Amino acid sequence: MAAQGFKGYIQVYTGNGKGKTTAALGLALRAAGRGLRVFIGQFLKGQVYGELASLERFSPLVRVEQFGRKGFVHITENPDDEDVALARKGLERCAEAMTSGSFRIVILDEINVAVHFKLISEDELRAFLGRRPDDVEVVLTGRYAPGWLLEAADLVTDMVEVKHPYQKGIKAREGIEK
Amino acid sequence: MAAQGFKGYIQVYTGNGKGKTTAALGLALRAAGRGLRVFIGQFLKGQVYGELASLERFSPLVRVEQFGRKGFVHITENPDDEDVALARKGLERCAEAMTSGSFRIVILDEINVAVHFKLISEDELRAFLGRRPDDVEVVLTGRYAPGWLLEAADLVTDMVEVKHPYQKGIKAREGIEK
Repeated sequence: MAAQGFKGYIQVYTGNGKGKTTAALGLALRAAGRGLRVFIGQFLKGQVYGELASLERFSPLVRVEQFGRKGFVHITENPDDEDVALARKGLERCAEAMTSGSFRIVILDEINVAVHFKLISEDELRAFLGRRPDDVEVVLTGRYAPGWLLEAADLVTDMVEVKHPYQKGIKAREGIEK
Repeated sequence: MAAQGFKGYIQVYTGNGKGKTTAALGLALRAAGRGLRVFIGQFLKGQVYGELASLERFSPLVRVEQFGRKGFVHITENPDDEDVALARKGLERCAEAMTSGSFRIVILDEINVAVHFKLISEDELRAFLGRRPDDVEVVLTGRYAPGWLLEAADLVTDMVEVKHPYQKGIKAREGIEK
């Protein structure tokens, strides 16, 4: 894929509010509508079909891979070796996609959380970003984005939760929150 | 469509940051992946094809209508009669969708901006929300959400712009920002 004058940026969606992953999914949707190829790597998730089912309609414009165990991984401060191995392998897959020349946009969904819980080190993420070609947009989502990443990014949005029904003890609903 | 115990909420995505419309698009994508029907009404936009092209793949699960003149409407404090008429007609279409029993989720994209610039009055929006069936989720996007709407909503996310390349004088890129 030739650069065609496209200038890629580093985008970060962080904060405790809703909409970080959905903003990245919407971005993929819009880009695919314009014919741009998008790679989405989802950390801490495995076999989460709600999003996959929709995104498969955009194959081969959109490619999605999930790098977690089945379901959503609920990480503690002490992740085990399998979680770490899956996340590292995921980052390598994202790096391959980013440098392949095949994708204009590479989304690392929940990568900030994976770094926060030390599944991936900050140095590994820094090295990854250092390999970004100028004509590839990289989008990183998840709460807990570290300060240096906000510095390194071109575009940062902090999703601030003002009000949330979870506060009332309501669970995530299929098709809406998950 | 039977309620099947689904409890709908009012969601608001507001603030000056990026990701409000894309979060709503991603929400539609996820919901469609679960087989939920979604109506998207886009205010202040007409014949904006990037998003439409992608969403058409989800027809008939996802239905999109745009209620502005061609392109993005750049409203001033004194909107003209045509803009007002288009926006009001749009709100009525959203009301029909919301009360039709055919859609589980109704998204009013950029409605907050339409209200801010008085294309639609606050009373009209209040009346619209008063007609919401319990089993329909309503999502309102756009900066300038009024205080009473934040009060009325169940879930509010404030997208805060921390850093944006527009600050460097860079224009919106096709497939990414538009």
